[in-house]
Order: sequence, then structure tokens, then C-alpha cells
Amino acid sequence: MHAEHERFMRRALELARRGEGYTRPNPLVGAVIVKDGEVIAEGYHARYGGSHAEAEALERAGEDARGADLYVNLEPCVDFPGKKTPSCTEAIIRAGVKRVFVATRDPNPNVSGRGISRLREAGVEVVEGILEEEARELNEIFAHWIRTRRPFVSMKLAMSLDGKIATKTGDSRWITGEGSRRRVHELRRRHAAVLVGIETVLADDPELTVREVEGPQPLRVVLDSRGRTPPSARVLDGTTRTLIATTEAMPRGTEEELRGRGAEVVRFPSREGRVDIGKLLAWLGERDVDSVLVEGGGEVAWSFVSQGLVNKLYLFYGPLIVGGRGAVPAVGGEGFHRLSDALRVEIKRVERLGPDVLVVAYPEGG
Amino acid sequence: MHAEHERFMRRALELARRGEGYTRPNPLVGAVIVKDGEVIAEGYHARYGGSHAEAEALERAGEDARGADLYVNLEPCVDFPGKKTPSCTEAIIRAGVKRVFVATRDPNPNVSGRGISRLREAGVEVVEGILEEEARELNEIFAHWIRTRRPFVSMKLAMSLDGKIATKTGDSRWITGEGSRRRVHELRRRHAAVLVGIETVLADDPELTVREVEGPQPLRVVLDSRGRTPPSARVLDGTTRTLIATTEAMPRGTEEELRGRGAEVVRFPSREGRVDIGKLLAWLGERDVDSVLVEGGGEVAWSFVSQGLVNKLYLFYGPLIVGGRGAVPAVGGEGFHRLSDALRVEIKRVERLGPDVLVVAYPEGG
Repeated sequence: MHAEHERFMRRALELARRGEGYTRPNPLVGAVIVKDGEVIAEGYHARYGGSHAEAEALERAGEDARGADLYVNLEPCVDFPGKKTPSCTEAIIRAGVKRVFVATRDPNPNVSGRGISRLREAGVEVVEGILEEEARELNEIFAHWIRTRRPFVSMKLAMSLDGKIATKTGDSRWITGEGSRRRVHELRRRHAAVLVGIETVLADDPELTVREVEGPQPLRVVLDSRGRTPPSARVLDGTTRTLIATTEAMPRGTEEELRGRGAEVVRFPSREGRVDIGKLLAWLGERDVDSVLVEGGGEVAWSFVSQGLVNKLYLFYGPLIVGGRGAVPAVGGEGFHRLSDALRVEIKRVERLGPDVLVVAYPEGG
Repeated sequence: MHAEHERFMRRALELARRGEGYTRPNPLVGAVIVKDGEVIAEGYHARYGGSHAEAEALERAGEDARGADLYVNLEPCVDFPGKKTPSCTEAIIRAGVKRVFVATRDPNPNVSGRGISRLREAGVEVVEGILEEEARELNEIFAHWIRTRRPFVSMKLAMSLDGKIATKTGDSRWITGEGSRRRVHELRRRHAAVLVGIETVLADDPELTVREVEGPQPLRVVLDSRGRTPPSARVLDGTTRTLIATTEAMPRGTEEELRGRGAEVVRFPSREGRVDIGKLLAWLGERDVDSVLVEGGGEVAWSFVSQGLVNKLYLFYGPLIVGGRGAVPAVGGEGFHRLSDALRVEIKRVERLGPDVLVVAYPEGG
């Protein structure tokens, strides 16, 4: 019986993922209505402002929803003043659903548990915790954002097995293979913004767009404290939005030139001569940017790691050993002086991606 | 039926492993005799010069071996002039065994396939290839040694997820946890010698002994071109053999002092001011040292990697990010200048060891 519940909840999670990139800063939600062991209707939250997963599924089921089971990965919403769509909790009750299976509670502390309480008050049986861990990971960006109004920061590092992102001479293409690169494009789709440092722009001239998978384009963010982004850089190709995060050190003429190339240029306070990334993250959060994928390079990675601003790590390892005291390390900067101060992480899972390895980890206590 | 063959062969492999560390430079061999689906006798090669696995199992089975099946991970030996023990192939034939399951052929090109041919000539059915890959890995040291008469070189690196073995200030304890350390002791048991550079002796003062598991002690080898090993170093504690591999640069007085501490001191030709490790490996091979576990540090790792002398890599990652351009990289030295020259490897498997990750890899085409 438990296996069957998991099967339907897994389907709900699958449906939820279809909205990836389109619902932000709303969560990803999928719903499945089951009667006599058969799926009779499905729905998912397809885009921000669109109908909720449960509402969609209930509408499709119509009268058949009466006495049925509903599987949904996130606790159904309750009414609150100013809400755009009718609350799913009331719709579920009205439709006569018998049982509701919920993977995770709403992470918003203002409403968490209220949908479940309301359902139970109305006599609907509620079962919690089916595939909870997976459901929690699926909406970890939303959960972080709704609590902090700051972007969830994922850090991607693509390195050799000995932790290098380039040789001593700067050769960096390619360390990881196609499977990893495709996964990076999926990660870009999952995040509202993609961020790199100016050194990466100068060295690799990346496009920072989603290409190998379907999905919306993230905001491209370049940390460029002095205004060294070349007008010919691919991030200025105009195909999608680009923010040049800079400081007072950028010459006015450069600012105008970059604006002329279509980029948004914003001056932030500086911190040790660089853009204060804490301030940048706050600014992005105020603009509903719920997530940032930090793609490098090593100095930028160190800035985020040393300031404790990383929420998740995606560590891709290509199958090679580069060596070299003078090679470019995945995480550079000053480095921690003592191991007891180092960033401790919990490894969530390890995946093989063709010849590469991906380690997904969370900072401890993060 | 295939699953049953695998089950008995897996048992043979298990038995074979009991000899680990004791049979070198002979292979690890286990044998299981099965009749009517039941194991009736078992044997394994327990130590160099001791009886062979098949002979032991056949002796235990006695008359019951007639008409039985024999599972053995390595092709049974044939007679050759000067052989210490009677050939297993003839013993199998004499005992009236009906079928022999062999995981891998003898890797010695002089005899490979001869045992199987002889059995078939005598009317014994031979089935090859059950659990071949596992059996090949189990005796990869023997296979390398019998063909080249040089030690099989395994390289162990224990680093942070970003490839550091110590912080900028030299803090290196501990990056990996207990599970990894226990595995390192198993690896030491598996190798005839354990090798480190003088910098590791000076920084960490390791014992380089097998402690957390049962097994024989490997030869301890220190690369110390100028004779900087302190008389108080733990590798000179006299508990087991130590070789100080040095060059003409070591003062005579130091040599005498180290000898006085029980170490063997051998001068090798130098290569860029360091011990020529190719020459050292040849010297070790001549003394029946079939395997060397290189344990670091970063400069020694680079010497082996850059000279193409690594046969297998054990990459242990502790769950932390250290960062730092000035931190100590797992593989140091000059480094490859171009990625196309880097050491490409094939990842054999990835294991979780508590909070750590172990990646086992082989150099491509190696």
C-alpha cells in the first residue's frame, strides 16, 4: 500500500517539475486524483499567476472527485486577503475528496499547517510525509525564498578529480563532458539568475543561457567591480537580460557603453574592492529573484564560500588529473587557514554522469 | 542457474581475499567444490609457498570430489619444471571433477590458457568468465607484476571536495573520516610497500603501518633525496621495515645514522634533484615487491602522475571545502600545461564511506 502511495506521489512530483523555471517565485506543485487505484485526473502549476495544480486536477475530475484520493507534493493553499485564485483547500472540501496525501507542509511560516488543519476540520483525511525528502528538495528554492526573501544560492563547480578548473596556462575546455554540461543547463533553468565573475567572462566568454534543454532564460549576472566586461562579450548579445553588478570604480563612460549594449548596470557598495555580494543578493531578492546559480570562477566561489552565502553545492568532476601548484583551483581566494574553519558539507548524493561524477551537497547546518 | 554459479564464485573470491597480503607475489585464489547444489569443500591460498586453493579444497573433499563442480577464481596451474607444489590441473583430473568454473585465465602469458586446455583434453568441462571483472580486479597486482616484474602502483589521495590536502598554513588533520582511514589501512595491507615523500614525513610524521585491520605490515618507503628524515620520525620506530630511498646528495653521516635506526638506505640515480622513481620501482620489482601504495604528498603524487607511473587511483574526498590559491593541492608540482596532456582516467566506481566519498579510477589505456 505504501508503495502505491509513493507511486502516485512520484507522479505528482513529476508533474510539478514541468513548471520548473516558469512558476517562480511560486513553488512547483503537481496533483494527482486517484479513484479505485486509477489516476482519474492530473494537474500542475504551470506558470506564475496560472491556476494551481489541485484546482486544475479537480476541474478535470469534475464530479468524479467525490470520494477520491488527492496526491499533492505541497500542502494546499488557504484563503488569505488578496489571493489571486480561490483557495485549493476550499475547492478540495467542496469537491468531496475523501483523502489528501501531502508530501510536505507549506514552508511559509505564516500559513504552514493551516491547509491541513482546515481539511481535517472539514472531515477530510490527511496523510503527510509521503516522499517528503524529495518533495522538500524540489521546493527548496521556494522554501528559502519565502522565509528570507533572499535568493537561494547554488554553487556549481566543474573541476578535475584533483580540484582544478584550469591548467597553469589557463586551459579550461573541457574538463567535464556532455552529460555534465546538459545537467548545468538544467540547473540554469532551475534558477532565476546565473552569476559569474569578470575573470570567467574574460577567460571563457560564456553565453550563460539555457540551451540544451527547454526552459526560460535566467537573468545573467556578472560581478564586474571595475567595468572590464568587453562590449563584444557574449553576455551582452542581447538574447536575454544581463545585469552588470559593479561598484563606484566603474567609469561613467563604461557604464553608458554597457547600457548601450542592453545591459542593466547597477552600482553596489564595495567590500575589499569587490561588489558586496550580500548586498547584491538582498537587491536581487527585492526583485523576486528567488535563486542564483553561481558558476564561477574560483575567486567568486571563494567569496560566496567565505561569506557563508552558499545554500547548495553541485560539484562536477571530470575524469582527469591536472596537477600543478600553479593551476587554477576550483575554490581560490585566501582559503580557510584552519580546517576547523572550513566549510563543512553534507553530501546528499553522488551521481555518475557518463564519465563524470556529480556530488550534490549542502553546507552543514545550512 | 547463472545466479547460482555467481554465488559459488563469489564465495571463491571471498575465500581468496583471506590471503590478502600473505600470498604475494603469488595471486589470491579461492576454491569451492560443489555437489548437488551444496558446498562440500573449500580452500584458499593462504600464504606464499603454502598449498594452492584447489589442492586444499580437493584434499578436504576426498572421494566426494568425483563428479563434482569446482569453482576457482583463477585458472588452475599446470606443471612446469621447478614447481614447488604438484599442479592443480592434474589434481583436478585425478580427483574426477566433472566441471570447472574459472573466473579469469592465468595472466602470466607463458601459461595462460594452458590449464584450461589440459582440463578439456582430459574430458573436464570448463566454463569461463563467471564474475570475471571482480576476479580480474582482485588479482590486478599479480597480473601486472607477472607481466612486467615491476610493482603495481596505486595512488591514494585524501582531499577536500575542492582538491586540497592541507590549508595554506599546513593544517591537514583531518580531512577524511574514520571510514576512509580504515579503508586506507585495508589498502596498505593489500600492497607490499607504502611510499611517501619526505615532506609528508616532516609535516605529518605518519607511522605507515597497518593498524585498523589484521594483516602483514608493508615495507615503508620514504623518498628522501637529501636525507632530511629526522631520527625521531615514526617510520624509524623499528616496528617494521623501512627503506629510505635517497640520492648521492645524502651526507654519509646521515646514512649511517639512519642505518643505526634500523632503516635500509639505498642511493638511486637522481632526476631533477629527486630520486628517480622509475629506477626505484625497477629496484623494488627485482626484490619481489609486487605493489606500492603511494600516499603522498602532492609533489610525490605529481612525480608519479607526470611520469605515467600510476596504475590505479583511490581518491578519498572528505566533506569540506577548504579554498585558497595558496592551499596545498592534492596533486602539485608543475602540473600539465594543457588539458589534452592531462592524465585521463576511467572511473571504476564511486563509494560512500560515511560522510566521505571514494572514487576508484584507472588511467585510460593503463
